[in-house]
Amino acid sequence: MLFARPLAELIAQLEKLPGVGPKSAQRLAFHIIRLPTDDVRRLADTLVEARDALRLCSQCQNISAQEVCPICDDTRRTVAQICVVGDPQDIAAMERINEFKGRYHVLHGLLNPMEGISPEDLKVRELLDRLTDEVEEVILATNPTIEGDATALYIAKLIKPLDIRVTRLAHGMPVGGELDYADSATLLSALEYRREL
Amino acid sequence: MLFARPLAELIAQLEKLPGVGPKSAQRLAFHIIRLPTDDVRRLADTLVEARDALRLCSQCQNISAQEVCPICDDTRRTVAQICVVGDPQDIAAMERINEFKGRYHVLHGLLNPMEGISPEDLKVRELLDRLTDEVEEVILATNPTIEGDATALYIAKLIKPLDIRVTRLAHGMPVGGELDYADSATLLSALEYRREL
Repeated sequence: MLFARPLAELIAQLEKLPGVGPKSAQRLAFHIIRLPTDDVRRLADTLVEARDALRLCSQCQNISAQEVCPICDDTRRTVAQICVVGDPQDIAAMERINEFKGRYHVLHGLLNPMEGISPEDLKVRELLDRLTDEVEEVILATNPTIEGDATALYIAKLIKPLDIRVTRLAHGMPVGGELDYADSATLLSALEYRREL
Repeated sequence: MLFARPLAELIAQLEKLPGVGPKSAQRLAFHIIRLPTDDVRRLADTLVEARDALRLCSQCQNISAQEVCPICDDTRRTVAQICVVGDPQDIAAMERINEFKGRYHVLHGLLNPMEGISPEDLKVRELLDRLTDEVEEVILATNPTIEGDATALYIAKLIKPLDIRVTRLAHGMPVGGELDYADSATLLSALEYRREL
């Protein structure tokens, strides 16, 4: 037994987190057990509180502390445009360019037959339910990857018959990249040159 | 506001951890809030329990769940040799080579005048208190860095007058490297060719 049991247990728990290998789990654990007790309690409480307090916005499905998230609750934002993204992080990326003034819709994933992710696993039904007469355009801002493109095409086919404009972010971004990592300038031009699908 | 408040709070707390930048804090946070509630509670409890349950072994100063750690409590290990390391992680590295059968002593740091770390900040006094007649050799296994070498020399000078053999791990390891990252074969040869100071 290389480490005391509570320490080994902590390392094992940390190793389960994404991007945390055995080595960084060990580093994190040693850091944590040396922190003041109050700091560790605060961190632990924050984990549980965040998990308990957060839900999905009933409209856009974004992570939210309220029934309706601040973006959907903001009447200054037009309901005529809905920007569809794969993950909640992508909304932060879009908001950083400070250009889009419509609403969002989070799919919580992208189509991926290899991993068994089909349309029923995504918030597609919820998107279609939002497509009232007020909606003029759906901007498909899924990642410019195989999965993101497939998801965009799938949704475009569903929406086309509804006589709503369907656009896709311009491939100004490096193909194969992730929206969440794009710089604001690139994302801005991708929004500007979005094209009809 | 890009993220709901409990989520932003969680990201802020995670960012304080070593090696966790804004991006990975965000990824970790999104992972955590999607985990089953029970998993998050277990992680939070483990953090607090580890912090509360762990102390320093009264003998070797290693992180321990007991007053005396399992290594110091193991009577099959000789008390004639004490291997001095900078950090608790270094004990795990030494134990992995499965060769050393003596006891350890953890300094909890290395001398570093630039960062204001002086002998009083390390567990040097506690080491000297352990140097009874039974102790025949002190192996200085601090990192082969400037700080590790300085610490070894400092301790060697203190012990020499006590007529105890003082050795240093052979510089078989890449100079400037860290013990905690050394592979077992390198560490094994470094132990084998340890030299008198």
